[in-house]
Amino acid sequence: MEIERIPILRFTEEGKSEAEARVTREFPLTIILNNQELVTLLCSPTSLEYLTIGFLFSEGLLNSRGNIKKIIVDKPRGVVQVKTKKGEESDELVFKPLIASGGGKGLHSYRATNAQSQARVESQIGISAHEVFALVEEFVKRSHIFKATGGVHSSALCDTEEILVFAEDIGRHNAIDKVFGECMLRDIPTDDRMIITSGRISSEILLKVAKRKIPIIISKSAPTNLGVRLATDLGITLIGFVRGKRMNVYTNGWRVVA
Amino acid sequence: MEIERIPILRFTEEGKSEAEARVTREFPLTIILNNQELVTLLCSPTSLEYLTIGFLFSEGLLNSRGNIKKIIVDKPRGVVQVKTKKGEESDELVFKPLIASGGGKGLHSYRATNAQSQARVESQIGISAHEVFALVEEFVKRSHIFKATGGVHSSALCDTEEILVFAEDIGRHNAIDKVFGECMLRDIPTDDRMIITSGRISSEILLKVAKRKIPIIISKSAPTNLGVRLATDLGITLIGFVRGKRMNVYTNGWRVVA
Repeated sequence: MEIERIPILRFTEEGKSEAEARVTREFPLTIILNNQELVTLLCSPTSLEYLTIGFLFSEGLLNSRGNIKKIIVDKPRGVVQVKTKKGEESDELVFKPLIASGGGKGLHSYRATNAQSQARVESQIGISAHEVFALVEEFVKRSHIFKATGGVHSSALCDTEEILVFAEDIGRHNAIDKVFGECMLRDIPTDDRMIITSGRISSEILLKVAKRKIPIIISKSAPTNLGVRLATDLGITLIGFVRGKRMNVYTNGWRVVA
Repeated sequence: MEIERIPILRFTEEGKSEAEARVTREFPLTIILNNQELVTLLCSPTSLEYLTIGFLFSEGLLNSRGNIKKIIVDKPRGVVQVKTKKGEESDELVFKPLIASGGGKGLHSYRATNAQSQARVESQIGISAHEVFALVEEFVKRSHIFKATGGVHSSALCDTEEILVFAEDIGRHNAIDKVFGECMLRDIPTDDRMIITSGRISSEILLKVAKRKIPIIISKSAPTNLGVRLATDLGITLIGFVRGKRMNVYTNGWRVVA
């Protein structure tokens, strides 16, 4: 249930072949506390009851098991409703403007409508596997803070030849936002270019990249099933697990030549 | 500026020694858009201007460079103010109850006051390096979805002998919340026990663990400087980079014997 099998193209030094990859499932779960819609988490679709209760505890919205009146899990709709005894819920958090932006790691801003209203990326650029391997090698070389501390993510904008903008940050969303912010402020075009990230490719990362009309996303890590689905729908080439001279092309492989 | 050097205890098969580790810096950045406090991001303290503009773009709150009237970066206070031309800001996001919970990955719920009001963990339990290595080996063995997909994090509650509760999730916060939710619903005590995580230990993860009065946190990955500082202040033993028969003890090493 947590794993989906999808067809991919696998590139190695010997050339390309059709293969099957296992990707992890990403599931939007909406938590309703005392009839108030609280948050939509993107999660793995297991232990939804435990996740909900743990989340409410961590956020200071539930202090003990004894205060839970009812938990209703509606898995098909992706909703968990929790009712607590009156006065339990903290009024410290809810509706606080400080945290009302839906921002940060982007988790709270998950809205299915985003995906539906996002335009397809139509770029006709292509890249060779050799170019991807060379770019990722350069990308890893530049990740100085990661090498020193192991504690950050990296992100880069590049064309098929070189890295144009590079950033590191403790957050994988922040690292990409730093790259895009620099592109905006320095008038660096992103169309027909590529983004490289050290982090996993979830639906949110994919949407962020689609908003900048970037046709190719390259990661050292794994994508989720929703990341793959959105990349397919939005015409984006998703390349993952680039390790040395091996990589997986999950979607829109027509842009990649061996 | 992004790296801090801190004294640690390094454990290997040969025993323990004093060493120095480099940890990445974690920095709370508050973004104010048109005089309204929007969000506090936890980030690496570089390119704050780029991060802010990229974030506003990704969240749909800024569409082009031409709409920026002013950017004021106040690094000492950790604040960036942005003023945009009138009508630019989307009213879709701000103050929307759905995303007003400060939840999800916990990023938005960063509040310095949380740390100040958090009680110290007073547990007197101890653990040997040998026990940590054995627990983490078992932890890795159990991470089936990670092994299959490379796309998830794991978390576990354990005592010095065995893993008691285990969870995997695409989010590192979610994985820990699943463990704590199960503890709450199944009345499994967390005092005098330990948490293992595959993910990095930031200040938010540390606070989450402190709330459950857990005295020892063990990670395969790196901590941030704020994670280390909070662990010191809250009396929590922070063990990181457990790889095979090596590990770093960052704080409160008196709980660990070789």
